[in-house]
Amino acid sequence: MEDRYIVIMAGGSGERFWPASRTKRPKHLLPIVGEEPMLAQTVARLEGFVPTENVFVITNSQQLAAVREVCTTLPEANMVAEPVGRDTAAAVGLAMLLIKEKNPDATLAMLPADAFISDAAGFRKALNVAFRAAEDSPSLVTLGIAPTEPATGYGYIQKGEAINQFEGQDVYKVVEFKEKPDLATAEAYLKSGDYYWNAGMFVWSVSAISNALSRYTPTLKSGLDEIENRRSAGEPLFALLEELYPRLEKISIDFAIMEQADNVVTLAATFDWDDVGAWPAIERHFPKDEQGNVADGSAVFESSSGNIAVGPDGHLLAFVGVDDLIVVKTEDATLVCSKKEAQKIKDLVKRLDADKR
Amino acid sequence: MEDRYIVIMAGGSGERFWPASRTKRPKHLLPIVGEEPMLAQTVARLEGFVPTENVFVITNSQQLAAVREVCTTLPEANMVAEPVGRDTAAAVGLAMLLIKEKNPDATLAMLPADAFISDAAGFRKALNVAFRAAEDSPSLVTLGIAPTEPATGYGYIQKGEAINQFEGQDVYKVVEFKEKPDLATAEAYLKSGDYYWNAGMFVWSVSAISNALSRYTPTLKSGLDEIENRRSAGEPLFALLEELYPRLEKISIDFAIMEQADNVVTLAATFDWDDVGAWPAIERHFPKDEQGNVADGSAVFESSSGNIAVGPDGHLLAFVGVDDLIVVKTEDATLVCSKKEAQKIKDLVKRLDADKR
Repeated sequence: MEDRYIVIMAGGSGERFWPASRTKRPKHLLPIVGEEPMLAQTVARLEGFVPTENVFVITNSQQLAAVREVCTTLPEANMVAEPVGRDTAAAVGLAMLLIKEKNPDATLAMLPADAFISDAAGFRKALNVAFRAAEDSPSLVTLGIAPTEPATGYGYIQKGEAINQFEGQDVYKVVEFKEKPDLATAEAYLKSGDYYWNAGMFVWSVSAISNALSRYTPTLKSGLDEIENRRSAGEPLFALLEELYPRLEKISIDFAIMEQADNVVTLAATFDWDDVGAWPAIERHFPKDEQGNVADGSAVFESSSGNIAVGPDGHLLAFVGVDDLIVVKTEDATLVCSKKEAQKIKDLVKRLDADKR
Repeated sequence: MEDRYIVIMAGGSGERFWPASRTKRPKHLLPIVGEEPMLAQTVARLEGFVPTENVFVITNSQQLAAVREVCTTLPEANMVAEPVGRDTAAAVGLAMLLIKEKNPDATLAMLPADAFISDAAGFRKALNVAFRAAEDSPSLVTLGIAPTEPATGYGYIQKGEAINQFEGQDVYKVVEFKEKPDLATAEAYLKSGDYYWNAGMFVWSVSAISNALSRYTPTLKSGLDEIENRRSAGEPLFALLEELYPRLEKISIDFAIMEQADNVVTLAATFDWDDVGAWPAIERHFPKDEQGNVADGSAVFESSSGNIAVGPDGHLLAFVGVDDLIVVKTEDATLVCSKKEAQKIKDLVKRLDADKR
């Protein structure tokens, strides 16, 4: 337990949840699904799994104050801001440095802040198996989510032979990481039973990830080494990150390591999982009326079907003769969007940013 | 001038403009098109045409306070509330009683409170001709609006031979009042040049309308006579209306008199006129962007066309991937409605009333 650490990645921009989300308050800082912000739910889900002082959050400087407000149970020093985003491999490296400094024998889990998981017990059970696998051998463990539908919005992990077992659960060698598939491929994946959704949840020892970084991304690793060495010489972390972090190689962890390394393993996590990637996802988490409408807040539907209404209680959202819309009302903006066109919300946010609204 | 009176009919419920309109604040009390409430625009349009003390407003008890707030230039006693709605013929009768009491030799125009007319000079010119016709002979004058398109949402007036001329403008005998036509019929009307839109604007002398009421709706007229007689005996108007108005025959002025009488005349009013009957009508009064969207307030349109946005400045209405919607944001409710289904807003309002929201 004392050698187990958790690093929660909480740096997304959440453009897809505009207007609820803004640069300073992205999805993981909002109660998109559930009563608490997604990050608070993620922290709560881990309560008692490791000591509180072993839970870290990596965020960015714009969100740091809000992250500290949300994570009241964690030591303030455990919340660290990237001065700039340098993609996920750099964040993995930063997490490794933070934990290594505390405990070079540590094993750490890297978890996204904003996934929705209601089955906390199932989640902790799977996470425990992943930790045991990472503690048992210097492997890179990734949690695979057993797919429930042929989703085209996620990457997939192809499992190979079972190479170990913990708590009665098989751990498999990973054959390959797969990009988001088309529907026919996703259907084939689902049918075969050999593919899991890649939820971006990883567990590895400090030494295993350090070795993998050295082997597969030496440029990034040497940048991280410089931070580590000057930190050991007593320089303050904040100033070091300000100076050196922007120069780190910018590459994703999947591309840098997971798709290259030969010691990647996976296990089938069977807890419910939803990355709630955009507004259309939230209808999975609210009861539908007979016409398939869902409401998070006050809404009324007249000759309307398949709509999603999100707003504060006390402000009535009224739908008349419309289908398959997302309507989100916040204090200073209201979004009216076709469910099919939700990916264009990003374009809108870019335009608004350009117009400085 | 001293014998000319105006009675503005301001009693509509304005359900079609929910959520901007409510029972106590219907369309004519709102600036649906223009900066001022429609009723205030109607009063302003008449300024100087007759003395202020000759302008009356008939409304209902729920709206009386708001009407007085809007019509600050008119004497308070000139705003009279029907205790209950008894259709337009009873309102015509009430108007006649009010004016007759002031001046039995009067000629009065009955005008709706909520039409949009930007050409005030053209309007006053036509109204003057109508007054001259009604002063010249005991006829029932109705202003016909020269149609600009084959509209199916209005009733039509079929003109006959020219029987007189004032200020160089012909006055025609009316052949027939026509109900709202289908599109083919409306196209034929437009092509023939013999049909005008019925805008519900009438001018007649007290004696002409009194005689018409006696001849065509004797039951209603005897009810009105009772009010008149007891009023002459000194009873206060408010108490009399409370007691007797609810018992008056309920019938429309078109059905009771205009479709029956043989002394109905019309003239071609060529000022712009729009009764702004429902939300879709407002797009005629705002500039359109290249995709045909209009905004009364702050709005942004991404991959969207043909939408109507109505909201307060400072609250952004954002449209993404949607077409032909009406979105109206007020303080406590937001409407999202298909333009084609705008007539169903009434159904929604009924449901909300039933649910007492």
